[in-house]
Amino acid sequence: MSKALGYAALTPTSPLAPLAFERRDPRANDVSIDILYCGVCHSDIHQARNEWGIAVYPLMPGHEIVGKVTAVGPAVRNYKVGDLVGVGCMVDSCQQCAACRKDLEQYCQEGPTMTYATPDRLDGTNTMGGYSDHIVVREEFVVRIPEGMDLAAAAPILCAGITTYSPLKHHGVGPGHKVGILGMGGLGHMGIKLAKAMGAEVTVFTRSAAKAGEARKQGADHVIVSTDAEQMAAAAGHFDFLLDTIPVQHDLNPYLQTLTFDGVHILVGLIEPIAPPVHAANLVLQRRVLAGSLIGGIAETQEVLDFCAEHGISCDIEMLDIQNINAAYERMIVGDVKYRFVIDMASLKA
Amino acid sequence: MSKALGYAALTPTSPLAPLAFERRDPRANDVSIDILYCGVCHSDIHQARNEWGIAVYPLMPGHEIVGKVTAVGPAVRNYKVGDLVGVGCMVDSCQQCAACRKDLEQYCQEGPTMTYATPDRLDGTNTMGGYSDHIVVREEFVVRIPEGMDLAAAAPILCAGITTYSPLKHHGVGPGHKVGILGMGGLGHMGIKLAKAMGAEVTVFTRSAAKAGEARKQGADHVIVSTDAEQMAAAAGHFDFLLDTIPVQHDLNPYLQTLTFDGVHILVGLIEPIAPPVHAANLVLQRRVLAGSLIGGIAETQEVLDFCAEHGISCDIEMLDIQNINAAYERMIVGDVKYRFVIDMASLKA
Repeated sequence: MSKALGYAALTPTSPLAPLAFERRDPRANDVSIDILYCGVCHSDIHQARNEWGIAVYPLMPGHEIVGKVTAVGPAVRNYKVGDLVGVGCMVDSCQQCAACRKDLEQYCQEGPTMTYATPDRLDGTNTMGGYSDHIVVREEFVVRIPEGMDLAAAAPILCAGITTYSPLKHHGVGPGHKVGILGMGGLGHMGIKLAKAMGAEVTVFTRSAAKAGEARKQGADHVIVSTDAEQMAAAAGHFDFLLDTIPVQHDLNPYLQTLTFDGVHILVGLIEPIAPPVHAANLVLQRRVLAGSLIGGIAETQEVLDFCAEHGISCDIEMLDIQNINAAYERMIVGDVKYRFVIDMASLKA
Repeated sequence: MSKALGYAALTPTSPLAPLAFERRDPRANDVSIDILYCGVCHSDIHQARNEWGIAVYPLMPGHEIVGKVTAVGPAVRNYKVGDLVGVGCMVDSCQQCAACRKDLEQYCQEGPTMTYATPDRLDGTNTMGGYSDHIVVREEFVVRIPEGMDLAAAAPILCAGITTYSPLKHHGVGPGHKVGILGMGGLGHMGIKLAKAMGAEVTVFTRSAAKAGEARKQGADHVIVSTDAEQMAAAAGHFDFLLDTIPVQHDLNPYLQTLTFDGVHILVGLIEPIAPPVHAANLVLQRRVLAGSLIGGIAETQEVLDFCAEHGISCDIEMLDIQNINAAYERMIVGDVKYRFVIDMASLKA
């Protein structure tokens, strides 16, 4: 075992605070990684505060991890000491079910092992995330950071990037398609960049006309103010795809009506339940589809990193010292970050 | 103009009664058809009683029409006098929009002209359906009844058949797939036969164990009693596709949970709104899809007729004299028909 230091919540109501703990020694197929940067995802807040009811304490968040390899087990084939690597939302899965065999570990039929707050498949210990100085992860769940990529800005690609890339790719977004992006936070702003790089014409839906300039700066071709009934009506039947990153309940019906026939409305968030309810006519009468999507598989996570490197895409970030994590959470809750906090893990040693 | 006779509702509350009216003389691209049989669809009741709020009176229902060609306009290329033909839910569309160009006239961006209660695109007259002695329809919306097919049993394929065939085909149902059929009425029983003929393993969901024998008689491999929580739980993650023909509001969530990852729940009915609301987790966590589908295009309607002929599939029907149409409606409302009434149009002349 190796001594480790990180920030964790001990109860749903306690702020994150330093916690000394231990990481396992690398197993044969494990990679040990010194963490350089870790993005801060809204899920981290939900879990630290047990807002999904599945938290396990101590709860150490962090699943947008970028670091440097410091040791590898004897069976590790693809990584060596010194490599720059990433770890996303998962650290293990059964590797044998129909989903895993299709490189869709996120849909593992036994349930994937998440990067934090899930029992390790072998020893049952509670996984501890990336708000820490190092981590030990089996090789199959480690990805390579492409050469030349800004390491801090790459971190959120491990969650915000893959979560938006995966459904756009899966549903075949490409040149000539009209894509609408709902919500312009960490996920939404990545969705704009990725859909643009895939060749689509991108429109951002925003509640506030004041955000139009920012949407265009991010690469949007058009902006629709969703609170303007006239603008929404004018968009009827227009879009091939909607990527819905809005993290709170909202009425899908007006958006569904902006889809053309065979249009696809993709949900990446858990807005429970979908309220007000969807009208079947909005699906049936134009063969529209309401689809869900959860992060992405590991092969696809490598793919989005490579895609971002190729297209010069990175996340807009604000650097954070880990000592300020609790204040950062409060700012995230009111949407006051453009667009992702990334912890500079050097601060942990300060 | 030619004199015509049919059964129509004059108001939302009046029973269907004989109505003498006129059909247009065939235009250059029109086919005149003496109607032999017409299936009775639940939509006919909704429209006759203005339950969708879009009825136009006099309202003469009927969109599962089988008959014999009696005349053709000079530009008609594919049909001649004496041919046995069918007409389904549509009699015209713009023929030029993106949907029409893909043979998806049902999603015509201008709106298709339905077989009844819609203004004709050229003269604006209210279309009158198949509860009548003859009909005049442009060639592009006429299909051919395959040789040797039982004409009366073929009629419901024009709506109940195509409505179930189209989504099964569109979503790629085939050998090795596990398909669940929700509801076992006119649509559901056709869904069983079609999915079986496509090579799928078919399970019928029914609220009543008493219907298990009938489901198996129709070709189902398995039956799940949907009111039995244990049976539903045992089916978790099992199905690739669900074809949902239940015509009344119902909770989709327990059904969604029986889908595997990437599973597709297909709605073919307007259950407004979808209540209780869908939980996004049931879509997101396993990349499931909630899809709508409306009847089918004309080319596909010909395809399902040919498919049924090839596989020896027909609708289970009960023959009806048109004088008994109002009593038939009452029986349909309580589900007392196996599985489709078909009007023998010879009765109109009795």
